[in-house]
Amino acid sequence: MCRWLAYLGAPVFLEDFIAKPCQSLIAQSRHCREAKSEVNADGFGVGWYGERERPGLFRDVRPAWSDENLLSIAHQIRSSLFLAHVRAATGTATIRTNCHPFAADRYLFMHNGQIGGWQRVRRALEAHIPDNHYASRQGTTDSEAIFLLLLAFGFSSDAEGAFAAVIDLIERQMAASAVNEPLRFTAAMSDGEKLYAIRYASDLRPPTLYLNTRGSGGGALIVSEPIDDATTCWDSVPPQSFVRIDRAGIVVSPFRRS
Amino acid sequence: MCRWLAYLGAPVFLEDFIAKPCQSLIAQSRHCREAKSEVNADGFGVGWYGERERPGLFRDVRPAWSDENLLSIAHQIRSSLFLAHVRAATGTATIRTNCHPFAADRYLFMHNGQIGGWQRVRRALEAHIPDNHYASRQGTTDSEAIFLLLLAFGFSSDAEGAFAAVIDLIERQMAASAVNEPLRFTAAMSDGEKLYAIRYASDLRPPTLYLNTRGSGGGALIVSEPIDDATTCWDSVPPQSFVRIDRAGIVVSPFRRS
Amino acid sequence: MCRWLAYLGAPVFLEDFIAKPCQSLIAQSRHCREAKSEVNADGFGVGWYGERERPGLFRDVRPAWSDENLLSIAHQIRSSLFLAHVRAATGTATIRTNCHPFAADRYLFMHNGQIGGWQRVRRALEAHIPDNHYASRQGTTDSEAIFLLLLAFGFSSDAEGAFAAVIDLIERQMAASAVNEPLRFTAAMSDGEKLYAIRYASDLRPPTLYLNTRGSGGGALIVSEPIDDATTCWDSVPPQSFVRIDRAGIVVSPFRRS
Amino acid sequence: MCRWLAYLGAPVFLEDFIAKPCQSLIAQSRHCREAKSEVNADGFGVGWYGERERPGLFRDVRPAWSDENLLSIAHQIRSSLFLAHVRAATGTATIRTNCHPFAADRYLFMHNGQIGGWQRVRRALEAHIPDNHYASRQGTTDSEAIFLLLLAFGFSSDAEGAFAAVIDLIERQMAASAVNEPLRFTAAMSDGEKLYAIRYASDLRPPTLYLNTRGSGGGALIVSEPIDDATTCWDSVPPQSFVRIDRAGIVVSPFRRS
Repeated sequence: MCRWLAYLGAPVFLEDFIAKPCQSLIAQSRHCREAKSEVNADGFGVGWYGERERPGLFRDVRPAWSDENLLSIAHQIRSSLFLAHVRAATGTATIRTNCHPFAADRYLFMHNGQIGGWQRVRRALEAHIPDNHYASRQGTTDSEAIFLLLLAFGFSSDAEGAFAAVIDLIERQMAASAVNEPLRFTAAMSDGEKLYAIRYASDLRPPTLYLNTRGSGGGALIVSEPIDDATTCWDSVPPQSFVRIDRAGIVVSPFRRS
Repeated sequence: MCRWLAYLGAPVFLEDFIAKPCQSLIAQSRHCREAKSEVNADGFGVGWYGERERPGLFRDVRPAWSDENLLSIAHQIRSSLFLAHVRAATGTATIRTNCHPFAADRYLFMHNGQIGGWQRVRRALEAHIPDNHYASRQGTTDSEAIFLLLLAFGFSSDAEGAFAAVIDLIERQMAASAVNEPLRFTAAMSDGEKLYAIRYASDLRPPTLYLNTRGSGGGALIVSEPIDDATTCWDSVPPQSFVRIDRAGIVVSPFRRS
Repeated sequence: MCRWLAYLGAPVFLEDFIAKPCQSLIAQSRHCREAKSEVNADGFGVGWYGERERPGLFRDVRPAWSDENLLSIAHQIRSSLFLAHVRAATGTATIRTNCHPFAADRYLFMHNGQIGGWQRVRRALEAHIPDNHYASRQGTTDSEAIFLLLLAFGFSSDAEGAFAAVIDLIERQMAASAVNEPLRFTAAMSDGEKLYAIRYASDLRPPTLYLNTRGSGGGALIVSEPIDDATTCWDSVPPQSFVRIDRAGIVVSPFRRS
Repeated sequence: MCRWLAYLGAPVFLEDFIAKPCQSLIAQSRHCREAKSEVNADGFGVGWYGERERPGLFRDVRPAWSDENLLSIAHQIRSSLFLAHVRAATGTATIRTNCHPFAADRYLFMHNGQIGGWQRVRRALEAHIPDNHYASRQGTTDSEAIFLLLLAFGFSSDAEGAFAAVIDLIERQMAASAVNEPLRFTAAMSDGEKLYAIRYASDLRPPTLYLNTRGSGGGALIVSEPIDDATTCWDSVPPQSFVRIDRAGIVVSPFRRS
């Protein structure tokens, strides 16, 4: 299990959410409250949209709390759309290319959860990644495979449809491989314009997800768990939900696999 | 605060204490029981005496639990005398040269604790390190400075006397600099033949230290906290004690600064 | 292109070949003589057989010349069979799991060369790795894929046959994918008892390989390029050769793909 | 010996000088032309002034050419004043805190060169760093010590005077310690408004320094060696020179120690 946060709104310095609040993402890397493993110290990453066509990406294998580069970058960089993640590895190596977010073209993706029985379904699922996206595969996580599948299954034209199709594919493959462990999937993805998030699990027990739309910047902050103790700001996103955030507003709707 | 263990006895594989027990040092890097900060993930190190005149030294800045090199080396290497450490940094950088143990010539040293007000006494204490040892200073920790002071103050001929003199020096400097925080000092040091440990604090509240002399190998294992739940094996070393371990036996005696 | 060395013979300290000679493997990491890219600083690794059933493995992403852990380990560890490698990446990430040697069970493998058009044949070749070996795939290099294919194609019972079959498979796939770049393949592999090496290229221009059987230890040292300037010690292994080294002796024979 | 570049002018993306030109700083990390050691792969760093009061700082121990974080950050960040450095270590450890640039408050500093006999003069020179600056010392290089001395000797009010006084101090200490090796010192420093550089050596053979004032942005780029092959753009700065660059213009003047 990991912790992440994503933001879309008026430009803020990354540190405003990553480093400064009492339960900031960096604080959560050492001690989070709402996950079974409270330490999320198997690497971290931040992806942000700035002036360039492609997002910036900064990932490393250290615990987020001890990386002075992360602190300095989060202090300097201001963005109106970014994703940040601290990792608790579940079986795959602690290497940069297994750290979230993952990036390809304009897209960023990050994930908290797990495909049950990953080693048993890995090959079959990777076989659904088309050649043009497979060359982007640099690590070995289930999360990166999901990202490339989402791109392959039409995320750019129908985000929710791609999530529905990919989750359906994964669950059918898990069934075919007689995997009993659940798929748990609380994730965020962006194309640089809109921000999407999902809270879903095949056993109806997905990792937590909270939405904060009451910030001074007027934007939306979506997080694995609250980054401060302001009790009235954080709305829990219901299980089996899909979240769409853009400049026009926020829609949270029930999610169903294809 | 950090966690460490040191062993002198019949040769064992390093992993027998570092990796295999339920509360092994690697387990303690993620979650220790008897320290305020339960995560000790700001680097690790192991120093061991083998066939060569000088000890081996392997240190890195990752959390011990995620370093596959550490697991492999601990699985391969057998030693009758070694020191191992997982670090929780207290203000100095997470760099290899700040990781314990520290090595110079035949000597290894590691430490759990802190010199109160380190930044205020650092220069004055470093000034007591003679030139021939100062060139060995590669980091910025109080621990490394203590190590070089111990060498300079005659550790090779009188280990306990060196500890007494150095602690006296530190406390007098802290007083001169009007430092109110305590000196806390639970440490181990070896010359490749004997193993010494100390549990001391200027405020009489030193970090914990336990001794296990009932292992099958007949040697002595000395640890920050027990590495398993065998309740009858672990003797708490009293505060303000000095421990001497060699092939002839173990002596625990009260310790007083010069 | 990379540089590597492998040794089978009377036990020697790893540093005797890795660190001490004037053109040691560490020296070659900064400046090698017989490869187009003279800098081999995208990680390193050493695998050695010791007292345990499985080999030890130590790999990292730094340049070999700046890693004090490597120096210390190579100074301490003595082995009668080991493989060591310094990497010059050719398109895949600088992460530990892409560093050589690769290990699985009792087996170690390392490689200097390249599968031409790797990104175009990767998926097809990976599809030939059976499930039980695919779970061992932790990186994304062509080299690791070749290693797992060799294990799958019967290396344990017929080493040369496995090499012949796997190279045949690769070249047929390259042809099917209309790859014009060559396969270049100078590699070593061991099961802990015997040491095998190959010097082969589809265009008859494989990376260099030298054999030294005149060392004082009576064993065989096989290297990408000589580690010292002793002109009479180093025999160039002819292109398209297969080398078998065990306690009984050394056989160099012509190699042909299946 | 190292390689560096510094820029003051209209905002440009960092990559325009660090990554894109044929002989960019990243290219020089693998193969530079005008230094004895052509590989500069013992870490790198970039410091830039942006919207915040203090500069951003990003440093790591890998070779610059293999760090995808550096590429991404250099692609995203635009600055009108920045310093970047690739390191070739000369005796001190490859750790982040020994990488240039060094930062304190508003100030950035980086250096190519060496204090001869550093280990013999280190303690004496460190003794001249006042307490308030000594707490900033996180590494062990001569370069970081020079930086803290420059701050202590009045850089903020008289940059050239501080350089003159510090160099005088160093040379007198080297003489007192009977050091015969030269002081070589080609360095850059900034307060966020102005950019200063020096090319100086006690033996009149300082490392190279070039100035380019013909860029399209109208600013000044000052470099260890040219980053492209445009023969008419690069003016060699004479030995024993001091360079002052600000929004008003550029002054190159002879430099003399106090």
